[in-house]
Amino acid sequence: MLMCNKERLQDKITTFSKFGDTGKGGITRLSLSPAALEAREEFCKRCKALGMEIKTDDMANIYATIPGDENLPAIMMGSHADSVKQGGNYDGILGVLTGLEVAETIVTEKIPHKHPITVVIWTNEEGARFEPAMMSSGVITGKFDKDVMLASKDTEGITFKEALEASGYMGEVENRMTPEKYRALVELHVEQGPVLEDEKIDIGVVEGVCGMINYEFTFAGQADHAGTTPMKYRKDALYAAVKTIQYLHDELDKLDSKLVYTTGKISAHPNIHTVIPDLVKFTLDARHQDPEVINQVLEIIKAIPKTVEKCEASFEKAWSRNTVHFHSEFVNYVEKNAKEFGYTTKRMYSGPGHDAQFITDIIPTTMIFVPSEKGHSHCEKEFTPLENCLKGANVLLQTVLDIDKK
Amino acid sequence: MLMCNKERLQDKITTFSKFGDTGKGGITRLSLSPAALEAREEFCKRCKALGMEIKTDDMANIYATIPGDENLPAIMMGSHADSVKQGGNYDGILGVLTGLEVAETIVTEKIPHKHPITVVIWTNEEGARFEPAMMSSGVITGKFDKDVMLASKDTEGITFKEALEASGYMGEVENRMTPEKYRALVELHVEQGPVLEDEKIDIGVVEGVCGMINYEFTFAGQADHAGTTPMKYRKDALYAAVKTIQYLHDELDKLDSKLVYTTGKISAHPNIHTVIPDLVKFTLDARHQDPEVINQVLEIIKAIPKTVEKCEASFEKAWSRNTVHFHSEFVNYVEKNAKEFGYTTKRMYSGPGHDAQFITDIIPTTMIFVPSEKGHSHCEKEFTPLENCLKGANVLLQTVLDIDKK
Repeated sequence: MLMCNKERLQDKITTFSKFGDTGKGGITRLSLSPAALEAREEFCKRCKALGMEIKTDDMANIYATIPGDENLPAIMMGSHADSVKQGGNYDGILGVLTGLEVAETIVTEKIPHKHPITVVIWTNEEGARFEPAMMSSGVITGKFDKDVMLASKDTEGITFKEALEASGYMGEVENRMTPEKYRALVELHVEQGPVLEDEKIDIGVVEGVCGMINYEFTFAGQADHAGTTPMKYRKDALYAAVKTIQYLHDELDKLDSKLVYTTGKISAHPNIHTVIPDLVKFTLDARHQDPEVINQVLEIIKAIPKTVEKCEASFEKAWSRNTVHFHSEFVNYVEKNAKEFGYTTKRMYSGPGHDAQFITDIIPTTMIFVPSEKGHSHCEKEFTPLENCLKGANVLLQTVLDIDKK
Repeated sequence: MLMCNKERLQDKITTFSKFGDTGKGGITRLSLSPAALEAREEFCKRCKALGMEIKTDDMANIYATIPGDENLPAIMMGSHADSVKQGGNYDGILGVLTGLEVAETIVTEKIPHKHPITVVIWTNEEGARFEPAMMSSGVITGKFDKDVMLASKDTEGITFKEALEASGYMGEVENRMTPEKYRALVELHVEQGPVLEDEKIDIGVVEGVCGMINYEFTFAGQADHAGTTPMKYRKDALYAAVKTIQYLHDELDKLDSKLVYTTGKISAHPNIHTVIPDLVKFTLDARHQDPEVINQVLEIIKAIPKTVEKCEASFEKAWSRNTVHFHSEFVNYVEKNAKEFGYTTKRMYSGPGHDAQFITDIIPTTMIFVPSEKGHSHCEKEFTPLENCLKGANVLLQTVLDIDKK
């Protein structure tokens, strides 16, 4: 079977790890920052050397294309090149670099193909500098209002519009990905969780992106002096919150074992050791691929009484997303190809969001996951062994060629 | 029986409520602030008008004295005149104003007494501008190092020393309260809790100040992505904290019903709704007059396992104080006098700290509590009906005269 080149892939990973290098094993490569622009320049230089044609759209998404039959839509690979603050060398960029390696393999091995083949960089996936995340894939698929996005500011007060205009990568609206011009997207990404490594799986066959709900809970009690208020008089909002978190754990643990839920954020007011808290808030994030399970979570939330430990309890939805299912035929290609290479596979749904979940609304899309060592991600310790990156690239190559043949 | 004057007491409360008036029913009268200096000026003016002699010591504590037999030590009444930010018109200042009203009654009614009688204002009881609380009673009783206190800074970087020197109230070390010069202290204070009002009690007969312990608990887990980490892999520090707070409630509720305990402060790291918390801290404040009950609390704390929900659990003492017992004979005077006036009484220990708890180490001391409406304190809603203030003043007057006779 056709395969990518290990040394070349290593060189790509090493080279790009310099752009935004924190000196501690990771990178800070916020969207459209000088470090991100260096990475874009290197990407374009390498694509041009392979004879690829480069276009950018009005959101600075980069499309680098190996020509094919000009009457056929292109097949896309790729991901994002920006990172969170003190992030790792794999999240996003590995999808770009394996895409580039597949392109290099196709060009240097002169592998025949009918469709044009494009490697894409989506602008500002992380939302770490300009909120929200997945901004540019969101704009071109109609999820976000472009004017609102252009007004998004970083911590220094620079708008996304200003950063876009200064970047040199802002192109034409006509260059946006459309179903007429593009046939498919295959996005390779690191798992960002521990399952593949723990179960010794080479390739995560990603069936979709889990639906999720995010709720904020509020408990209103009475702030009183810790030393003067007998227990029976108290309306302790923190204890009401504790009781409710325990209730949520007890009930949610009875649901399907694939459900993940998290109380990640908590705040207490006035948060003084000698004052009984009068206002406590916490969040619940819950994810599962089956909307029925998400509904069960909702029922459990709705069963919280209006009064908990004499405190007023309330909750409201902060945000949610429905489960996204990728193109089943492409999902099958990924699985078949991985197995033909002799790689172990596991079908799974992505917990985190990815550009692919927006793109799939417009064109047939799928994803390939490779293991994250110890599940670390969004940190400098993020790591995927080269061998696993190469396996992912090989499956990506074969899947793109399968789509091309269809 | 001799009694204080209701209209005069009302005038004092109304007049002093102007100094630092927030316009919302309360005051902000931080220690040695312009508002606090206005209150001191008014106090001194009124004391001089009564023929009292005014001295200040090196911590700006004010001692205003009705002369008596110069060979006898003085009997003190009083409290503090500073407030917290957006505090009320009763905490501290009511002890000063009832003392002043008692002095005015003694002077105007020409009540015979042998000992000199002093009204005191202790500087910086609240510690709201310069930490710690009870600073000046602490310095003159050897609890705090004066040089360290002088270096204490407010949020604008002004040291306590600078504020002291600028105040015009810094006097001589020789003027400090000593057991040779002072025979007793009786401090009237608002309860700052709901018990007296709720049980329809006029006078709290304060036997002492509760011992307390304050512990900080830490739970160290693993920060992972909320969407990628199956429940079984998690080390959720917030859930470990929740389990432990529930354990503490379950166990501490089995102890004596007079025990009060509070988890007032909690923090989670990184405190992001999509990240499993890796570090959670909370505090436990526990108070009871019986050291044996405090020991039982300690045993419950020590029984927390080293590992809770796969997270590393640890705790350390932030601070503590032993129970303070007031002078039993003076405590009896307060109770007897209240009953002779026909007032309802309840023996109790103070939960919060007061200057009196330091002073009692040096000279015989006791306290008188009057009810706080709904237990509100350290807020603008703090209120004690005039009738209750007057009852307190009457008991204070009689108690000082009892001590004088002894």
